[in-house]
Amino acid sequence: MPPDQQTDAAAPRRPRLTPPIADVRRAVRGVLPAGAESTASPLVLVALSGGADSLALAAAAAFEAPRAGCRAGAVVVDHGLQAGSADIAEAAAATARELGLDPVLVRRVEVASAGPASAGGPEASARDARYAALDAAALETGAALVLLGHTLDDQAETVLLGLARGSGAASLSGMPARAGRNARPLLGIRRATTRQACLDAGLTPWDDPHNLDPAYARVRVRERVLPVLETELGPGIAEALARTAEHLREDEAAFSEQIEEFIEEICEPAEAGIAISVGALAANPAALRQRIIRHVVGSEFGVSLSRAQTLEVARLVTDWHGQGPIDLPGGVLATRAGRHVVLSTTGSTEILPHDH
Amino acid sequence: MPPDQQTDAAAPRRPRLTPPIADVRRAVRGVLPAGAESTASPLVLVALSGGADSLALAAAAAFEAPRAGCRAGAVVVDHGLQAGSADIAEAAAATARELGLDPVLVRRVEVASAGPASAGGPEASARDARYAALDAAALETGAALVLLGHTLDDQAETVLLGLARGSGAASLSGMPARAGRNARPLLGIRRATTRQACLDAGLTPWDDPHNLDPAYARVRVRERVLPVLETELGPGIAEALARTAEHLREDEAAFSEQIEEFIEEICEPAEAGIAISVGALAANPAALRQRIIRHVVGSEFGVSLSRAQTLEVARLVTDWHGQGPIDLPGGVLATRAGRHVVLSTTGSTEILPHDH
Repeated sequence: MPPDQQTDAAAPRRPRLTPPIADVRRAVRGVLPAGAESTASPLVLVALSGGADSLALAAAAAFEAPRAGCRAGAVVVDHGLQAGSADIAEAAAATARELGLDPVLVRRVEVASAGPASAGGPEASARDARYAALDAAALETGAALVLLGHTLDDQAETVLLGLARGSGAASLSGMPARAGRNARPLLGIRRATTRQACLDAGLTPWDDPHNLDPAYARVRVRERVLPVLETELGPGIAEALARTAEHLREDEAAFSEQIEEFIEEICEPAEAGIAISVGALAANPAALRQRIIRHVVGSEFGVSLSRAQTLEVARLVTDWHGQGPIDLPGGVLATRAGRHVVLSTTGSTEILPHDH
Repeated sequence: MPPDQQTDAAAPRRPRLTPPIADVRRAVRGVLPAGAESTASPLVLVALSGGADSLALAAAAAFEAPRAGCRAGAVVVDHGLQAGSADIAEAAAATARELGLDPVLVRRVEVASAGPASAGGPEASARDARYAALDAAALETGAALVLLGHTLDDQAETVLLGLARGSGAASLSGMPARAGRNARPLLGIRRATTRQACLDAGLTPWDDPHNLDPAYARVRVRERVLPVLETELGPGIAEALARTAEHLREDEAAFSEQIEEFIEEICEPAEAGIAISVGALAANPAALRQRIIRHVVGSEFGVSLSRAQTLEVARLVTDWHGQGPIDLPGGVLATRAGRHVVLSTTGSTEILPHDH
């Protein structure tokens, strides 16, 4: 028996470096902040459910963080949605402590039940509660980074769920690798790799029964849709979906950057609203024109326009033949007034001087 | 019995106006060219296979064209890929003549068999041969427009096939509603609607056995993938996919338009190639930077770069640390030389004066 395997048997928490473990560690290494020499080591918190993805992530963070001059801790969020959830959270926290993570926090959250607050369904409510708890934990501990265990498979599933909405690049661009202090280092790693990394490390992941409940659209995508796509269109479909997300996220970012650059120039305050220059809308290609309209209505009135509504507003420019004001959600009216499209809650088309 | 149904019985070629017939006619009406009063009526050719989609299209064109001051004809392409294909083509031509279309052409094409010319497989070869025959027929007859029978279902299938490639908006944007003289008026119409329109009109569509052959990826998408998506993600998925195509086509058009506007400014001729300004590449967001690189390599050398290759060239700008020339397909080399990224077949980085 070679010496390294002898070592393994004596110390199960210092596993042999198998390819899955190496892949997960390399991914984590790529996102860790540079440790500062003169100040306290930055803290990185792993969002840990106890499932294979986040458990492999926690083990990798425990290994990599000290080598990068960081500290690694964990937050376990107990959603309280199933019997014994507190025990499951405590078990995950215990594993995190055994891995050497410190601090390890357990946070119980209340998931909003049916009602207007949970418009996106139980999955959206649980997600909102989870991210709020992670944010609070990061603030409380002064963490520089929160690591989320989403894998390439999660990304592929997110793209397919977005496809069902059919609202273009914005709904197909999946989850960002980085957003604020949240990072998703495993978006390029298959779920099976994280499971194998756990097994190789002698860690036993917890299998959430919700992950097999076909009441959830994501579970149906995972268990029924992706396998059919793999069979009929060939293997590599999950990777193709994840690549698509990356592509479309870049596209969306480019359009956002362009709009940020000129939005102030082409808008003017109006009574009870805002006016967009018809010339600017006309000069831009459809993709930008429609995004400008959605952006302005979204940021001014907090209203998200459908494609059909956006196109109807755009026709005040592209197909202007004297049509009347357009009723939009939230009591917003879109009115063509000379060289402006005016969006307001009163239907007034009075443009205010810029220095008002 | 109301009078219009009595008329139907006597003249089966002037069917009662059912909603499916009305939908297809309205779609066709939307794309017909305005008939000129002073010159000969423009000719519109329907690409007719005899299947439900193109048969409904032919019937609608026969009805709408004279009312719009146009003439409607048809081209039947015989791919010669199955026994009896000539008879099937002749039967479709006969139906077109009965519908009043004139001229009606039948064109036999040779589909390239396996080999480098058919890199995209038998489906791509047949498609290339078909479009070449349609182009030739349009030139020969002086047709202003060729109408293609692709439906919303075809568009949804095209998006799913593109998803498997994973190359972003370009591969997900489906088929254009208009490209040159080719128009696809039925992209907003379900396939089932075209079939019902045929039945309502007393027309019997031909069912191509290839449409049930699971050797074709498109057939597998239609018969196995889309039904699972409909079941698991809810009805409306075909519409969502078609809407996605429309969205992403607009996005792609916007990027192309932007690149066309500035590409000349940011490129200079180089010995055996072309040089792109590092400043311009750096100043643009990733989505545009990568498209500029792909565009230049594509138009200068006829080479299509993968995402990995494109990103490697981009790193000569975004992550410059003195790396050497990058080998690209087609013997193209990408080299960072001062304020330029030079693409050439010799590796030379000499920039030529603009007036050479």
